[in-house]
Amino acid sequence: MQVMIIGAGGMLGRKLAARIAADGALEGKPVEALSLIDVVAPEAPAGFAGKASCEAADLSAPGVAAALVAARPEVIVHLAAIVSGEAEADFDKGYRINLDGTRLLFEAIRAEAAKAPYRPRVVFTSSIAVFGAPFPEVIDDEFFCAPLTSYGAQKAIGELLLNDYTRRGFMDGIAIRLPTICIRPGKPNAAASGFFSNILREPLVGQEAVLPVEESVRHWHASPRAAVGFLVRAASMDLAPLGNRRTLNLPGLSATVGEQIEALRRVAGERAVKLIRRVPDPTIARIVAGWPENFTATRAKTLGFAAETTFDEIIRVHIEDELGGSPPG
Amino acid sequence: MQVMIIGAGGMLGRKLAARIAADGALEGKPVEALSLIDVVAPEAPAGFAGKASCEAADLSAPGVAAALVAARPEVIVHLAAIVSGEAEADFDKGYRINLDGTRLLFEAIRAEAAKAPYRPRVVFTSSIAVFGAPFPEVIDDEFFCAPLTSYGAQKAIGELLLNDYTRRGFMDGIAIRLPTICIRPGKPNAAASGFFSNILREPLVGQEAVLPVEESVRHWHASPRAAVGFLVRAASMDLAPLGNRRTLNLPGLSATVGEQIEALRRVAGERAVKLIRRVPDPTIARIVAGWPENFTATRAKTLGFAAETTFDEIIRVHIEDELGGSPPG
Repeated sequence: MQVMIIGAGGMLGRKLAARIAADGALEGKPVEALSLIDVVAPEAPAGFAGKASCEAADLSAPGVAAALVAARPEVIVHLAAIVSGEAEADFDKGYRINLDGTRLLFEAIRAEAAKAPYRPRVVFTSSIAVFGAPFPEVIDDEFFCAPLTSYGAQKAIGELLLNDYTRRGFMDGIAIRLPTICIRPGKPNAAASGFFSNILREPLVGQEAVLPVEESVRHWHASPRAAVGFLVRAASMDLAPLGNRRTLNLPGLSATVGEQIEALRRVAGERAVKLIRRVPDPTIARIVAGWPENFTATRAKTLGFAAETTFDEIIRVHIEDELGGSPPG
Repeated sequence: MQVMIIGAGGMLGRKLAARIAADGALEGKPVEALSLIDVVAPEAPAGFAGKASCEAADLSAPGVAAALVAARPEVIVHLAAIVSGEAEADFDKGYRINLDGTRLLFEAIRAEAAKAPYRPRVVFTSSIAVFGAPFPEVIDDEFFCAPLTSYGAQKAIGELLLNDYTRRGFMDGIAIRLPTICIRPGKPNAAASGFFSNILREPLVGQEAVLPVEESVRHWHASPRAAVGFLVRAASMDLAPLGNRRTLNLPGLSATVGEQIEALRRVAGERAVKLIRRVPDPTIARIVAGWPENFTATRAKTLGFAAETTFDEIIRVHIEDELGGSPPG
């Protein structure tokens, strides 16, 4: 099987490529070729026995989508996107990459299928940013999209396109709305959601981290490892049970910041917790207040998607996957 | 005030232009200029005291949207669309007219606003086709879009764009999801929904009509006069109370075919009812089974949108507006 990952240079793309390289397969189906695409050529994952190709390409540029799809990959994982903050700051760029890029990909698949039968699996990563406040405490699978960012609007449009192209038989698509990824590896960043990861990741290695909101703030999380599991499952499972509704709210863990901190205390002790510095930031508090807190994710759970159920588990996953098994402290 | 109607040649566009011409205003605000656009130049409405201009233009063609918006109309009513059946039969045309045409209009408005302050009222007619079965018996204002036609997907995408462009301050938009229009004037047509009108309109003038479904079939209706009232209200009301949620399910009348027929009996007698010929059509029955039956339309009602509450009323509106006040029979 030939798998293409568009947006393979990002955190999730790299982890997915590494997982496929390690498994040599997608849930038991052998992967012979891995095509990794990003605006800067991604690195090939270590230890892949098949053929890996890495290419720099901008999906939104003329002809690029057609050239990529000409290789007829059986599975296309479309992760490429401008993030929320940038899509809000640069309206044209957000629509060009997040909407036009996605539509050009789908159109290229349709054009390829018009030449000779072709119906690839397409996994599109959407986001809980398709929802906008006010919403119920727990969002069910039939709650409407009312995004409050251009990024959220672009993702919701991508979902509608994917569902229509799939219903029309041009592809076999699935759109998955990922929880916030926690603990995000790497450096602290300035994204409004950054602190959810920072307050765990930094103290685990003896560094200070800033908490800008109250401990009562509740949010929706899954580990990078769970997210890769979602992608693998979406790329390989039989999608017929989804019928014409190819968009899923994925499972996650609904937890308060206080619960995150208690888990940190249990896993890494009081010394780690003491490294969290409380610096209230009203701007971040206001942004975060507009974010979803909890989901039923009933359909996705029924279909076998699974995330962590405690923050202790999320922290242990980080220790295993990023810190070599034990916190250095 | 300058009002532009795009798609002014259709049934609703003509009726809206006639209403504005008769009133010389939009809910009390004087209209000095009326610009009517369609792919074939529409006719100017009779009796308009202001300046009417009628123009043939295809919104999806390069440069057309910019040229239209250059006149800076304060109100733009965007009715232009390829209907459901055609959008399903011609994938490219549906996306070109219904999605690209709408997006080009919104982009032209944004570009015009970048030259000098401009924030027109934009009324976008969406449809209950944004919903796809299965759904609850009564659809509330927060039920999700899962369209089962490309037309429905294109309308749902138009709504998302309108909401985002409005949130970003580029326009003052409202998207209204119209009920099925009944009694639709004119000739019987082959649309799957045609019979809802045919079984009343034809018998009222002594003609036979075919009923292809069971009398138990329930659907969601409003008269053409109510629809024009929706457009006038959407074009003129203060939209601030809608906040960032600029899409409305509009009120209508939920009625079974049996209830339609009973109303016909009360208004036009047994002789009219006897002109309805039952010719079951499994294809139409299957299509109609996937359509919504009822809505709460709570937000729209709170905002002053109103439709008929009995089918007797819908029939009387047709008699007054299309048959000169009394059924010829």
